[in-house]
Amino acid sequence: MPKEKELVFGHKNPDTDAVSAAVAYSYLQNQLGYNTEAVALGEPNLETKFVYDHFDAKYPRVISAINGEVKKVMLVDHNERQQSVSDIDDVQITHVVDHHRIANFETKLPLYYRAEPLGCVSTIVWKMYNEEEIEIPTKIAALMASSIISDTLLLKSPTTTDEDRDALKDLSKIAGIDYESYGLEMLKAGTNLDSKSTQELIDMDAKSFDMNGNSVRIAQVNTVDIDDTLKREADFIKDIKAENVDKGYNLFVLLITNILTSDTTGVIIGDDDAIKTFEEALNTKVSDNKASLPGVVSRKKQVVPPLDAKF
Amino acid sequence: MPKEKELVFGHKNPDTDAVSAAVAYSYLQNQLGYNTEAVALGEPNLETKFVYDHFDAKYPRVISAINGEVKKVMLVDHNERQQSVSDIDDVQITHVVDHHRIANFETKLPLYYRAEPLGCVSTIVWKMYNEEEIEIPTKIAALMASSIISDTLLLKSPTTTDEDRDALKDLSKIAGIDYESYGLEMLKAGTNLDSKSTQELIDMDAKSFDMNGNSVRIAQVNTVDIDDTLKREADFIKDIKAENVDKGYNLFVLLITNILTSDTTGVIIGDDDAIKTFEEALNTKVSDNKASLPGVVSRKKQVVPPLDAKF
Repeated sequence: MPKEKELVFGHKNPDTDAVSAAVAYSYLQNQLGYNTEAVALGEPNLETKFVYDHFDAKYPRVISAINGEVKKVMLVDHNERQQSVSDIDDVQITHVVDHHRIANFETKLPLYYRAEPLGCVSTIVWKMYNEEEIEIPTKIAALMASSIISDTLLLKSPTTTDEDRDALKDLSKIAGIDYESYGLEMLKAGTNLDSKSTQELIDMDAKSFDMNGNSVRIAQVNTVDIDDTLKREADFIKDIKAENVDKGYNLFVLLITNILTSDTTGVIIGDDDAIKTFEEALNTKVSDNKASLPGVVSRKKQVVPPLDAKF
Repeated sequence: MPKEKELVFGHKNPDTDAVSAAVAYSYLQNQLGYNTEAVALGEPNLETKFVYDHFDAKYPRVISAINGEVKKVMLVDHNERQQSVSDIDDVQITHVVDHHRIANFETKLPLYYRAEPLGCVSTIVWKMYNEEEIEIPTKIAALMASSIISDTLLLKSPTTTDEDRDALKDLSKIAGIDYESYGLEMLKAGTNLDSKSTQELIDMDAKSFDMNGNSVRIAQVNTVDIDDTLKREADFIKDIKAENVDKGYNLFVLLITNILTSDTTGVIIGDDDAIKTFEEALNTKVSDNKASLPGVVSRKKQVVPPLDAKF
């Protein structure tokens, strides 16, 4: 009897890893006897579009809800309900592969759950291919390598582990790519900021946090030239101020990160007290709404924890 | 720099797997460079005591709370907070190895989480030893084999998978035991019911469930002779009736399971409607407070789901 079909997908607003880890995990599971299809919970961003075009890979079908299509699903790169399909509670989650904390997640039945605190889910999936001794197809290896480059900013993010480094080397060899040169090209493709409005840029990769009663919004854009991005500084400030009034944020932090030099300039707008807290937490000075943050690339690891601790 | 010490433990009211999976996983992690100690959240039950005496193995230190002893812990065979140490929220959970559903569990940070829907956690730990190519010491192999025998009732429970079968065979070979004869002896050691009061027996392995507003309690005792156990039928009924009044249960199901023949007789006491629901769900007849349940051995898999669906 053929296995019941399952869908495999990453989080909403997908990035390269969310989509490609789903593609890689779906292929692996099908080799092991499952009947799965990888899908995406959104259209590709600029970087991901570059990746799929570059390797002539088929971007998965885009869905936003299961709508009764299947009864069982597998999640990659997320577990929190609000990051998943809208009707996630109507289906059985049979497998999860992830590298985030576990929160707002509950199942009725036992399941396969594989989480490891590595830089990229595709690194975990690479380990699983090796454990199962399944050969990784060239094109899938290229997508997985691209995911690791994306999530670790070419192995420079402090979230990078030795296993991410080993995986990227191995996958690049299989895919026949020079990950240093390809990686730079790929990251740059994701920084074509001119095609977006400043409002789109402060929304694109933004997360909200409650820090001891303060509503804090932290957005991040990657660039290859911070000065060039800051030519639109006046528009950023106008949009952020409007957003703070509109949504009641006490503090808005826009991290403009140079992926080549691994430095960040922050545009910081909010209550006087909140700005003072930011200065103390990040050991920097905010002047003319801007702060220099040398060596900062990871919101998750270098900005949220010290800020959360100071509030 | 030596690694910070962590404690490894299974659930409260520990059974053979909860304790032995902790012992086996702690040893594995120490081989991989961690600094851990396995502990138990309770004294051994009759079966577990037999196992540790039989192999002259040291039963882990018993704790009920962390009390600031360590900052980080690893969980095996459970994840739900109410089954763990009382102060679980005060420490960081860095690793989980489990075979249950995920519920009432949340972390602040990413972690290692390995769950698989297999019959026994020790089977998952056995896979991890193989993946890491770490040799399993004879005594630990014996404890892991005992765990699989315990959780799967000598491979007869419907929760048993092919991987549990493979693991038991391999571990028995390493430990130098004949798992059929040893397993029967071990399971019988856990059925020395005469040493317990009927009140202890209906408490020993009992779980509460809310089924569509009905408060349902399901207890299970293992025996090698159901008729012999039912010599104390009048006392069981008296204690259960008192319990129903005291705790407000709508239905109490005591499963008396013959581990040799894999059959169960239920002692069923509760509201008329609830008893009717039980009869329909399990396709049986309750007469004189008793119901025959041939082939039933697993509460989790054969009793809770049909009952929950009927209420």
